[in-house]
Amino acid sequence: MRGVISSYFLKTFIACSQCKKYNVFNRSSHYSSKAAEDGDVEWPRRVVTGIQPTGELHIGNYFGAIRRCVRLQEQGDDLMIFIADLHSLTTRQEPARLQARVLELAACVLAAGADPARCVLFVQSAVPRHAELCWLLTCLATHARLAHLPQYKEKAAAMKEVPLGLLLYPVLQAADVLLYGGTHVPVGADQVQHLQVAAALARTFAHRYGRAFPAPRALLADDGSDRLRSLRNPNKKMSKSDTDPKSRILLTDPDDIIELKIRKAVTDFTPQVTFEPETRPGVSNLVSIHCLAEDKLPEEVVQEAEGLSTAQYKRVVAAALQRELAPVRARARAAALAGLR
Amino acid sequence: MRGVISSYFLKTFIACSQCKKYNVFNRSSHYSSKAAEDGDVEWPRRVVTGIQPTGELHIGNYFGAIRRCVRLQEQGDDLMIFIADLHSLTTRQEPARLQARVLELAACVLAAGADPARCVLFVQSAVPRHAELCWLLTCLATHARLAHLPQYKEKAAAMKEVPLGLLLYPVLQAADVLLYGGTHVPVGADQVQHLQVAAALARTFAHRYGRAFPAPRALLADDGSDRLRSLRNPNKKMSKSDTDPKSRILLTDPDDIIELKIRKAVTDFTPQVTFEPETRPGVSNLVSIHCLAEDKLPEEVVQEAEGLSTAQYKRVVAAALQRELAPVRARARAAALAGLR
Repeated sequence: MRGVISSYFLKTFIACSQCKKYNVFNRSSHYSSKAAEDGDVEWPRRVVTGIQPTGELHIGNYFGAIRRCVRLQEQGDDLMIFIADLHSLTTRQEPARLQARVLELAACVLAAGADPARCVLFVQSAVPRHAELCWLLTCLATHARLAHLPQYKEKAAAMKEVPLGLLLYPVLQAADVLLYGGTHVPVGADQVQHLQVAAALARTFAHRYGRAFPAPRALLADDGSDRLRSLRNPNKKMSKSDTDPKSRILLTDPDDIIELKIRKAVTDFTPQVTFEPETRPGVSNLVSIHCLAEDKLPEEVVQEAEGLSTAQYKRVVAAALQRELAPVRARARAAALAGLR
Repeated sequence: MRGVISSYFLKTFIACSQCKKYNVFNRSSHYSSKAAEDGDVEWPRRVVTGIQPTGELHIGNYFGAIRRCVRLQEQGDDLMIFIADLHSLTTRQEPARLQARVLELAACVLAAGADPARCVLFVQSAVPRHAELCWLLTCLATHARLAHLPQYKEKAAAMKEVPLGLLLYPVLQAADVLLYGGTHVPVGADQVQHLQVAAALARTFAHRYGRAFPAPRALLADDGSDRLRSLRNPNKKMSKSDTDPKSRILLTDPDDIIELKIRKAVTDFTPQVTFEPETRPGVSNLVSIHCLAEDKLPEEVVQEAEGLSTAQYKRVVAAALQRELAPVRARARAAALAGLR
């Protein structure tokens, strides 16, 4: 038997004063008038995206997550950005440092241009509904389905004692998105399967409780921002956990450090600038960074660099990156200072 | 490095206005002045107990859970009773029916004598902190530890698709108790291991975040209320899931049904009334029920029944049970009606 959701919890779940404050659940006509399993419902587009406050932010995070959100806002999307501190707890965190990073990330997101008048920006743990819906979905999820996700298997393989939070990571992710009726989620290719889990949980919830959610779809980056490579070993992804700090450029790096790290970037022995990610990953990575910094296509960048050696070209890339990052860095610092006062 | 808990979430977690309203976290001197791992801290005694609103309530639930709580209140314990609807969701629930059962259970608890002026009575899902702390503890729990609990193995073995909620059941239980600094939890013998999980999670939390909780201890029933047998097959426990409704007496059963079910109770071919649970489980079960209804010891009851056949004794037991349950039933009905208005 299906029916309206009516237990104490499920009832209050729909009429959440906190969420109303955030102007969520303002789609009552959709929620009440559409059949639970009507797959043809056209849900109004809403983008929901969470960014983890773990580790220092590098340019991969900046271009791939933060600036990408801001661009969705600029194109007029109905956008919710949250700082996913509950997700961070799936790995070990030192509380004081985590709090500092939540503030830093908020400052960076604002500095990058997120405008609270045009998007909703919040800290995940400030909204209890995330954990509450997570519990409801946990009761609908199975171990078998989650334990087979490649990202879990990869992370769990590297650990001696695997916290259950890691297994439930995609369930909390599903809660994050379903809670707000999100239709689109900007993710990297490695997260597409997590959204499939979310869509499956949405279907099960609808079937069990008669309450429909949109099945969230992945918004994949088409600008290469999710494929930036390590500056020291272009066969690896740029990563905050790399032991060599010169492998990545941080959002907080001053101009001279940016220049130094780009100058030391590993390329190859061919002096020409070309874009061939498979055979020349080092120089192609610089082209990618350049493209992101100046919003250009690889062809344009390569054409402009004709006649330059890679050594000369590195100065061009560093300058482009400095121009893009300096104002963000300055605003972030100001915002962080304001937040600490 | 350990330190004060200071992430956004963990901070608000301590200063929860909702919980303050319930007069929880009123032990600030303990929280702030004691070292996190000081095992010798004498926490003030507080009993926390959850009752699941699933299935119709039978006399095992009444004597073993509801009346037991009320007696703790009568003896002056600092007592919190909650209706554990979030736990119910670990098995399949029809929402409207679940809501009705939450109200029924609340009515019964009040009818049995729970007094909101002397204890705290609430519905679990109305307090978001349960789900929130559950997530925090999920990040500290491991699959290996939980998957080896006998109750999980038993329940999971009977299912085709095991919901993760079932695995996390003891983690939510731990959250329920730790949230309020509970020191004692009335449970059956089969739940003692769950409290050991809670104690272990409390230690891990204290070690990780520098916030101490009392390690909750089990309060085991000493009146046999957790060992009532089926009236149709005294080798099995009295259970709400038994297919034969005559196997149990419900709290809602009117006097004539109580008499009928006791009369039909399976005993043996020896007419004397004795208390020998191992060799004569049927008649011993009647003695147990009689003891619970009249607050007597088996010796007393058996002595009083000297000279009676089991058939005659059944009338005595039925009468005792009717006297105990009739006023509770009447008050519960009145409370339920009042709640529905």
